Amino acid sequence: MRTALLQSSGRPGSVVENLKVLDEAAARAAEAGAGLLIAPELFLTGYAIGADVHRLAEPADGDSADEVAEIAGRHGLAVVYGYPERAADSGPVHNSAQLISADGTRLANYRKTHLYGCFEQEWFTPGDEPVVQAELNGLRVGLMICYDVEFPENVRAHALAGTDLLVVPTAQMHPFHFVAESVVPVRAFENQMYVAYVNRAGKEGEFEFVGLSTLAGPDGGARARAGRAEELVLGDVDPVFLAASRETNPYLKDRCPRLYGSLV
Amino acid sequence: MRTALLQSSGRPGSVVENLKVLDEAAARAAEAGAGLLIAPELFLTGYAIGADVHRLAEPADGDSADEVAEIAGRHGLAVVYGYPERAADSGPVHNSAQLISADGTRLANYRKTHLYGCFEQEWFTPGDEPVVQAELNGLRVGLMICYDVEFPENVRAHALAGTDLLVVPTAQMHPFHFVAESVVPVRAFENQMYVAYVNRAGKEGEFEFVGLSTLAGPDGGARARAGRAEELVLGDVDPVFLAASRETNPYLKDRCPRLYGSLV
Repeated sequence: MRTALLQSSGRPGSVVENLKVLDEAAARAAEAGAGLLIAPELFLTGYAIGADVHRLAEPADGDSADEVAEIAGRHGLAVVYGYPERAADSGPVHNSAQLISADGTRLANYRKTHLYGCFEQEWFTPGDEPVVQAELNGLRVGLMICYDVEFPENVRAHALAGTDLLVVPTAQMHPFHFVAESVVPVRAFENQMYVAYVNRAGKEGEFEFVGLSTLAGPDGGARARAGRAEELVLGDVDPVFLAASRETNPYLKDRCPRLYGSLV
Repeated sequence: MRTALLQSSGRPGSVVENLKVLDEAAARAAEAGAGLLIAPELFLTGYAIGADVHRLAEPADGDSADEVAEIAGRHGLAVVYGYPERAADSGPVHNSAQLISADGTRLANYRKTHLYGCFEQEWFTPGDEPVVQAELNGLRVGLMICYDVEFPENVRAHALAGTDLLVVPTAQMHPFHFVAESVVPVRAFENQMYVAYVNRAGKEGEFEFVGLSTLAGPDGGARARAGRAEELVLGDVDPVFLAASRETNPYLKDRCPRLYGSLV
């Protein structure tokens, strides 16, 4: 499955403009043969917009989800996007990512479990479901957000649950380029899966996002790698290569769970 | 603490010759100010020596341990070395690593828990103690061997037990250079510790070892990095830097163990 990584910060604060950016990217991705387009963490609204992450928060089936479903349907590909989720009327707000299929079905919705730093811990309530998955074009797709992927436990839980492609919208800041460059490829290798890590780019408020969005394969190699600026990059998720790689690298078979008791 | 990584395959099959190589390396390491010298997996005997790993196996307090203690004492530094361990008279043979201090004390002995491939699974019995540590020069030093470090669970268990410097004798083969180049630095970063990964080099039987021994810091950067050939490289483990890095990267504090139940 060709996978498109939309590295962009859109227009922080403007949902209308961000849906336009998503629509344009979906057109380009579809033309290039992509079956899935992935936008960064909180792409719908912007990241460093303070209290506006609450003002602009929507339920998982809100108006913007309908708009994204229309974009997905118009261009014939699935879309993952990050957004602030209002759990119920005036309920808690989560930092979420949703997968909507080409036929407009909301396939999966994930709430970030590991919030990063003071900003996120002030504005968001952590989710409590570690593994959220959906079937898409014959692949088991898992969802995770940014800081979550830096914890090896989280990605291992996905591997044990059979995730083939882990989709990770992110908002990774300077100076943590090591995560994009090294941690993400290692997660793909040690868990024998593909990992799509899709970042914002450039300055936003006090933050400077490092870009470097990556689609990493189970050999640790990059199938797609963006630079530091806004960019749409594409790479292929190959289930035949994945199956062969899992034979050669039997990490899940060789684990000794009885020795890991201290982790929980 | 300056740490010396002895990247060498010694003379496979000759314990006497390998003790000589260790003695020479200890002299050079001590002269360069090292407090710890680390030799690779099964350095005492050789790795690809078939049934000889049983013939040459010794108890943890055997004659060769006494020889290593003499070397450590003569040069005034601690030594970690890999060897085939005979658990008791004609008992099982483990793939082990032992830490002996400069005053000749056997501080810690670790038996590899995750055996790699057919060769190791034929000749060795896995250990069942996941975390083995000792205090050395104000640092908590942990022991692990080769394939063990590729499982994030193992290294996480050390982090939770307070390991500052994880010492990993290895016998890493072509084409798995990705482990030395990427997995080891990521382990150091995600667990906020130093990791010393010390490999064999060159051809031995059916195997070709990739070298690339590395001392990785908690920022993921290399404090020492060998090439592909036999080499002694040195780098520093800095407890002040480590403490500051742990403040900046609070992975252990930000973990959510209640979400990791599927791992055990």
